[in-house]
Amino acid sequence: MSEYLPGLAGVPATKSNISDIDGEKGVLYYRGYPIEQLAKHSSFEETSLLLLDGELPTTAKLAEFDSQLRENRQVKYHIRELMKALPATGHPMEMLQTAVASLSMFYPGNECLTSTEMCEDLNYIHNMTVKIIARMGTIVAMWQHLRHGYEPPVPREDLTYAENFLYMLNREEPDPLLAHIMDVCLILHAEHTINASTFSALVTASTLSSPYSVITAAIGTLSGPLHGGANQRVLEMLNDIGSPDKAEAYVDEKLANKQVIWGMGHREYKTKDPRAIILQGLVAELMEARGGDVNPLMEIALEVERVVEDRLAHKGVYPNVDFYSGILYHEMGIPADQFTAIFAISRTAGWLAHWREQLADNRIFRPTQMYIGSEPREFVPIGRR
Amino acid sequence: MSEYLPGLAGVPATKSNISDIDGEKGVLYYRGYPIEQLAKHSSFEETSLLLLDGELPTTAKLAEFDSQLRENRQVKYHIRELMKALPATGHPMEMLQTAVASLSMFYPGNECLTSTEMCEDLNYIHNMTVKIIARMGTIVAMWQHLRHGYEPPVPREDLTYAENFLYMLNREEPDPLLAHIMDVCLILHAEHTINASTFSALVTASTLSSPYSVITAAIGTLSGPLHGGANQRVLEMLNDIGSPDKAEAYVDEKLANKQVIWGMGHREYKTKDPRAIILQGLVAELMEARGGDVNPLMEIALEVERVVEDRLAHKGVYPNVDFYSGILYHEMGIPADQFTAIFAISRTAGWLAHWREQLADNRIFRPTQMYIGSEPREFVPIGRR
Repeated sequence: MSEYLPGLAGVPATKSNISDIDGEKGVLYYRGYPIEQLAKHSSFEETSLLLLDGELPTTAKLAEFDSQLRENRQVKYHIRELMKALPATGHPMEMLQTAVASLSMFYPGNECLTSTEMCEDLNYIHNMTVKIIARMGTIVAMWQHLRHGYEPPVPREDLTYAENFLYMLNREEPDPLLAHIMDVCLILHAEHTINASTFSALVTASTLSSPYSVITAAIGTLSGPLHGGANQRVLEMLNDIGSPDKAEAYVDEKLANKQVIWGMGHREYKTKDPRAIILQGLVAELMEARGGDVNPLMEIALEVERVVEDRLAHKGVYPNVDFYSGILYHEMGIPADQFTAIFAISRTAGWLAHWREQLADNRIFRPTQMYIGSEPREFVPIGRR
Repeated sequence: MSEYLPGLAGVPATKSNISDIDGEKGVLYYRGYPIEQLAKHSSFEETSLLLLDGELPTTAKLAEFDSQLRENRQVKYHIRELMKALPATGHPMEMLQTAVASLSMFYPGNECLTSTEMCEDLNYIHNMTVKIIARMGTIVAMWQHLRHGYEPPVPREDLTYAENFLYMLNREEPDPLLAHIMDVCLILHAEHTINASTFSALVTASTLSSPYSVITAAIGTLSGPLHGGANQRVLEMLNDIGSPDKAEAYVDEKLANKQVIWGMGHREYKTKDPRAIILQGLVAELMEARGGDVNPLMEIALEVERVVEDRLAHKGVYPNVDFYSGILYHEMGIPADQFTAIFAISRTAGWLAHWREQLADNRIFRPTQMYIGSEPREFVPIGRR
């Protein structure tokens, strides 16, 4: 038996072509392309197809994928009715897990994979992938209205993924710069090697469960506070701080008490998270475009950033992708409890790329345990215990 | 880096006190007690508490747990309304995954675990455990009526878990022998070390996600045809065979073509699955009590069993737990597509015992990957691809 390593830390659980991290240099690659280049030149639609297929698509392939995504944005009205039956107080991640689990009932023919032919049927896999990615944004945006008692807007086919998502959230066409920022956020969150939620997707996929089950499991795993959810906490922290002049004392007190400052540092990167650098640039761009007329929390965030970099940069701790995505989403008027759901929309592209890779060379995940429990013993009748 | 072992086969992923298998001798222990003794002397309620707490309960503790289970059988009528919004054609496992995911919205205060105090709060953990186990049977039984357009019966507090489940399924108090058989089936399926669904529960639990998310993920993983679902396929196979005189030719043809005969063999056991031996005894008991007046499929099953034992026993292949549970559930009038959902009801006790164990010594599951993809490369504009 191999050595027991808690959390399987350092244990290779899969061979993968999809993404790679160079933590020393602070580089993240999707299919070999540095994330900076994708953020600059690509779109969420193109990046999704790159993650899924392994290559940057031709004009024709991208156009086909994009139009499939647009056509599949609608969800059946029965799903809307189901969502109306959910308590308005529920967290968007709980709603998302429930709604995605229900999709396999609403769209039959996509149940468990029952043969090796199905695992190798790239048409089937592609179609499932399109349908799930397309509907994630719709479901998250619909909930924003349904939970307040209003009918959600109908998705539009004439907008990009990012534009339509913001349109559905706010019932108006988004400012082009904000739509661009959302598109970049979706690119940056789409994939990050084999973290807990992606691993969870692989384990569920390995029994040839349906892709809806795979994404449902991954959403549940992402929802845990040790994984997703940090960007929501960044916003709560900024609200706690209250004003820019209190940021320095807040950070120093947290550091002195060895408490968490949300949105700081990342175990994979010894230097600054490359995604954070990109988002930091977008924050600056937005500040400039607005002539400084941004949400008050932005000023608190910039002050927290300054203090943290001053105190912790020499230890390799910098604001991470969650820090900046939180303040950018807030600037778009998105409530903090939706942030992890947006992460899930984007990461669905990566999860499904890993699903496809798992099916291509599947082996059920069945590790062993170290049994450390009781020796065999005799049952004792209840009267004699 | 450790060696890459596909499916993590042979890699210890956890230390566990809960159950142990001696595959050479064909023995399964829950907390040190051989499964035969639990099947003979215990109940599903007592066995669940044993799995969760580690010790056989005193009379007072068992009475308290049992009454908590009875009190928590009801689900809110909003959950019934949500289930009514689900397509009647959906598989019970898809329904169960959706309904369990929704529970965390209907019962707030049970969201993600946000502190180490929560992970160590045995009251919180116990209460969550009771509520989830109690409601699993209710939800599965309700679906049997809702999917046919009828209001489900209200759960009864004066019956045992197994009795109430059969009462809710059939709207009448069960025959005592059938209720006993159901109770034994629930005991036998409650736990089986770290298989794919239990491992999936651990991975989801490790981000401190809610227990509802943990069970939702495990249900999805169990639903895959490489894991649960074999007992449903046993019934479909028996229907395919059609009559006892065709069983021999059917088995021999499958063997000659190296095709699967459902419900035969188990990778963990070199000898007969101890759970199968227990269920085989119950089949005989039921045959005798009925004076042979059983469902026609039973005769086909007994003939398949005879032929398989004749052809394969020397290779260590025998009918397994799925073979016998399928024919027993069928004899209770339960439709085959509900069999895996019954497995899930029972296994929830084991999943939650592992959830508790994971929280007591948590480390997020974050294995590594072997990156075998493209070297770093430059983005190519779409016009030049």
